[in-house]
Amino acid sequence: MSDQPTSKEVFSWPVRVYWEDTDAGGIVFYANYLKFFERSRTEWLRAKGIHQHDLRQATGGMFVVGQADVRYLKSARLDDELCITTTLLDAGRASMSIHQQAFLQAPTGRELLCQATIRAGWVNASSLKPDRIPLQILHALT
Amino acid sequence: MSDQPTSKEVFSWPVRVYWEDTDAGGIVFYANYLKFFERSRTEWLRAKGIHQHDLRQATGGMFVVGQADVRYLKSARLDDELCITTTLLDAGRASMSIHQQAFLQAPTGRELLCQATIRAGWVNASSLKPDRIPLQILHALT
Amino acid sequence: MSDQPTSKEVFSWPVRVYWEDTDAGGIVFYANYLKFFERSRTEWLRAKGIHQHDLRQATGGMFVVGQADVRYLKSARLDDELCITTTLLDAGRASMSIHQQAFLQAPTGRELLCQATIRAGWVNASSLKPDRIPLQILHALT
Amino acid sequence: MSDQPTSKEVFSWPVRVYWEDTDAGGIVFYANYLKFFERSRTEWLRAKGIHQHDLRQATGGMFVVGQADVRYLKSARLDDELCITTTLLDAGRASMSIHQQAFLQAPTGRELLCQATIRAGWVNASSLKPDRIPLQILHALT
Repeated sequence: MSDQPTSKEVFSWPVRVYWEDTDAGGIVFYANYLKFFERSRTEWLRAKGIHQHDLRQATGGMFVVGQADVRYLKSARLDDELCITTTLLDAGRASMSIHQQAFLQAPTGRELLCQATIRAGWVNASSLKPDRIPLQILHALT
Repeated sequence: MSDQPTSKEVFSWPVRVYWEDTDAGGIVFYANYLKFFERSRTEWLRAKGIHQHDLRQATGGMFVVGQADVRYLKSARLDDELCITTTLLDAGRASMSIHQQAFLQAPTGRELLCQATIRAGWVNASSLKPDRIPLQILHALT
Repeated sequence: MSDQPTSKEVFSWPVRVYWEDTDAGGIVFYANYLKFFERSRTEWLRAKGIHQHDLRQATGGMFVVGQADVRYLKSARLDDELCITTTLLDAGRASMSIHQQAFLQAPTGRELLCQATIRAGWVNASSLKPDRIPLQILHALT
Repeated sequence: MSDQPTSKEVFSWPVRVYWEDTDAGGIVFYANYLKFFERSRTEWLRAKGIHQHDLRQATGGMFVVGQADVRYLKSARLDDELCITTTLLDAGRASMSIHQQAFLQAPTGRELLCQATIRAGWVNASSLKPDRIPLQILHALT
């Protein structure tokens, strides 16, 4: 009955912070967490057998983000080792909602740095018009 | 009495879409709108006489984004000319809230592509601990 | 008789350094000068009536960089105002060579920060195979 | 007597191509190979016990790239798996030269996509003036 995230499968992907990710503030530039989240989503899809490049060749469609609500709690720095999680909240016919978190892997345990709720919709890659998520994806996801 | 954005000053900054901004979907990569929004916020501050690099040298502080709620409505493409707006919603002692929009400058008028509410807090640049926004900034902003 | 760059037309494009361009060293990340150079090349082409997105739709081709030799002399910092130049060295049937420089616009004059020689070839955008530069481009360039 | 690269230690680091790395041409944006090369250099240093963030805290110095000569042979695409190598060519008191290659990991073997010679100098992180590479680094490298 419960719909708690704790009951959901949580996919984790490691990310190292490089010079390219940081800014003159000495911390990871705020836009770059969206890159980290995208990498984790892509690897989560890949782990389910979904390869986005092949899929686009086959179906002519792709995911496009429609909404991103991000909370920044603490900052990551150069050389930090992060763990980026992806948890499916729900998947409908045209879009899916995903919960994502970025943790610092500290010697004393992991610390939450940033979290986001992302909604991604499926579109025709040429027209960019919304379309139904292919069934093979929906079956792999749920 | 009204708190409508329409009653607020709206700052605009032009942005051109270059190859670096796009991805293999043929559209602007979703994280890059946060770059565009940051450019417009920086130019809005500059227009008010606030230079972030000098200010950090002088005060040891800087703005850090704590929250970004982004809605993606339509996609921008290579060579598109965008207009990125910045509107101050409110400024407190430690943080400010800003409304931002990205418009496509189309021959037939402008079209809303993406919008966000951003909250930025002031921190000590070394410790990254929250601090009070310097009065010279508050006075310039409000 | 002379082939000095001084005898060539020099196109200039202003670039401001934003947070996104810098890294934790407090300076512009070395890869980002290639973004600045690309922006200047694109605006140089646009000034000659060449719009890359439209051209790709019309011809199915695009420029791809084959060679970039970059010298970094001094570093740019947050808020710096740069001027990025583009000078055509030569254009053949399949590729062109370009000289590019990044200058700091300092109160006391401009200072050379970085320079590069770039060779860009024309390719079929689907196959990525080298192709002849369309005549309309060659005529516009030379 | 020989100074062939084949007699040198070659460090390899895997890199996956994500959406963030590609552009509207459907391929990896040319500046992003410099990001990949930097990641491999950083991991090569880390494998030798050199952590750049810690080192900067301890010595006040950092590496800055002075020269990058890049040849682009073939293009990488979304989802491609790359292998990025780093080979030390020589290390002097103030700078080092490095040879780097980006290979596509194809089912049929690996294919060279891009290669570069990079020269990185050691500078004081505040003044950005050239300085001698700390001995602990030189000893770890050679």
